[in-house]
Amino acid sequence: MKIIIDGMGGDNAPQEIVKGAVKAAAEISETIVIVGPEELINNCLRECNFTGINIEVVNATEVISNHEAPAMAIRKKKDSTIVKGMNMVKNGEGDVFISGGSTGALLSGGLTTIGRIKGIRRPAIAAWFPKLNGKGTTLLLDCGASVEAKSEYLLQNGIMGSIFVKAVKGVENPDVRLLNIGAEESKGDELHKEAYKLLDASDINFNGNIEGRDVAETECDVVVTDGFSGNIFLKSSEGTALTLMHLLKDKLTEGVLAKLGAALAYGKIKEIVRIFDYSDVGGAPILGLKGPVLKIHGNSKETEVYYAILKAIPFVKNDVTGMISDAIKDNEVLFTSAKSAAE
Amino acid sequence: MKIIIDGMGGDNAPQEIVKGAVKAAAEISETIVIVGPEELINNCLRECNFTGINIEVVNATEVISNHEAPAMAIRKKKDSTIVKGMNMVKNGEGDVFISGGSTGALLSGGLTTIGRIKGIRRPAIAAWFPKLNGKGTTLLLDCGASVEAKSEYLLQNGIMGSIFVKAVKGVENPDVRLLNIGAEESKGDELHKEAYKLLDASDINFNGNIEGRDVAETECDVVVTDGFSGNIFLKSSEGTALTLMHLLKDKLTEGVLAKLGAALAYGKIKEIVRIFDYSDVGGAPILGLKGPVLKIHGNSKETEVYYAILKAIPFVKNDVTGMISDAIKDNEVLFTSAKSAAE
Repeated sequence: MKIIIDGMGGDNAPQEIVKGAVKAAAEISETIVIVGPEELINNCLRECNFTGINIEVVNATEVISNHEAPAMAIRKKKDSTIVKGMNMVKNGEGDVFISGGSTGALLSGGLTTIGRIKGIRRPAIAAWFPKLNGKGTTLLLDCGASVEAKSEYLLQNGIMGSIFVKAVKGVENPDVRLLNIGAEESKGDELHKEAYKLLDASDINFNGNIEGRDVAETECDVVVTDGFSGNIFLKSSEGTALTLMHLLKDKLTEGVLAKLGAALAYGKIKEIVRIFDYSDVGGAPILGLKGPVLKIHGNSKETEVYYAILKAIPFVKNDVTGMISDAIKDNEVLFTSAKSAAE
Repeated sequence: MKIIIDGMGGDNAPQEIVKGAVKAAAEISETIVIVGPEELINNCLRECNFTGINIEVVNATEVISNHEAPAMAIRKKKDSTIVKGMNMVKNGEGDVFISGGSTGALLSGGLTTIGRIKGIRRPAIAAWFPKLNGKGTTLLLDCGASVEAKSEYLLQNGIMGSIFVKAVKGVENPDVRLLNIGAEESKGDELHKEAYKLLDASDINFNGNIEGRDVAETECDVVVTDGFSGNIFLKSSEGTALTLMHLLKDKLTEGVLAKLGAALAYGKIKEIVRIFDYSDVGGAPILGLKGPVLKIHGNSKETEVYYAILKAIPFVKNDVTGMISDAIKDNEVLFTSAKSAAE
């Protein structure tokens, strides 16, 4: 297996990418291919005193930034790390592509380079959402690939998420919910009412609607959303959590008594902060493409890169792409019914 | 001015409603009318040792619960506190109706009893969202009245929210934003792109898109949303905040050191908790109806009821309803253009 990683993706590239790759390489027999400016990457490898044989470097001279229009950048920058890495997956020279680069460029590049699985209406960008009680993470998808969703996309998100969580986390029959504005089947707009019916008729373990306030504390594995409200959900939860933690930090360092108190309660406060540090969860997949692509946070460091590489292995080994392709075929009748109902 | 309040709305009715009314009555010259089972309400008034003259009781023998289908309940329960109170506003026997009862019933009752302002496409349910830095609150609307929104509804939400915040909080030129999945004008689905253009062309102080993660820390007065994503935003933020605060409480009462630390930092932790206690903000309006209606939280106690009554006065005095009606007329050309663009 060849795991391709974007050497220039994210704020801490290439140093932290290379460090994570070196750490992972020491533990696995798979080959890691770092795509990026050859000399720069090789220098980083030397700095890490890498002496193994399972890291290769493939030269790519261009980088796509977060500020570029994704589709245009993918078309123009043929020698960018993203286009090159994805082409390797497409051509069978690599089995999975990991990147901390622009999500838009990864999506756009994935569509034009690797292409969609037959029958998949729209690929979905997934994200891991931490349980605030410290009990693991939930896969949320779509988080913004399709802002104009249709009910059949939501059904496909449920199927793809279920397969991915089973493959990567080993959950036997992942518990799938639909993010909606009420718990009852009758709640929501037409899109979500129709999606409910489709998910319910499919063979995944669908357990109904979930409200925004319950995601953080409910034991479920996959939350299906449309790209628009999924993005709103994710960002508002993140915003609230970060603001509160900053506030806590600020308040607990104001004044002698509070400082002393915070020092005594330090261990416990640290436990709360650790809930947000789910760096061991691995990358978040862009699902629905003909080859595996994992997105890691732009601020990923060695640890996140290391885990993303380790967790990429079951993504490939369990043939998530093939399983999604089969499941889409099996459920084709549902998509067709959704399509005709919508027309 | 006659302020009508639902004596049976919410979890702490009628006791806390009556207490709040008694507290407010002592400070204002306006008349407060409590609608509810006469004997029960009068007993509560006696328990509060009320001796003033500006509280009246109007008998209503039925209560609409949160579990009833709103439209059906409004049709059938003609002697319910909600139907009776709203009829009083409609008939000019009262100037504003305050209730902690079912939001669905208030919306449904508002539409069928009081009716929409001419030109208003859909009334909107507003909510106050606390700034997590402790700097006041933002009015978010719509939070669920219209789950199938159109761009013209979003424009009307912006206009109505701006007028309400100006009237009730005295903000001269309220800063209005559009909740979207990116800051740039080009972001979002067709609904939000079109709404952006309309808001931008209107005469309110529109300052562009705001992302979910920024609402808690941005100095703005009104956030416009469609009912679906507004509801998702509100519930996910609330869910995250509540879960984190519970977590903090749990962790800080585990073990002797943490307990001692928490005791020392108590004052500061209390300051954080207080941010969520925005009981002085007043009720949240259902805007777009021909008469003022304020919704208070179902768990409201004396203080919330008291402030809701005080803040209802400028809602009426500044003739928010009339101002909305005028603004809708002034912007009719925008709604018409939106409508024809959509057709």
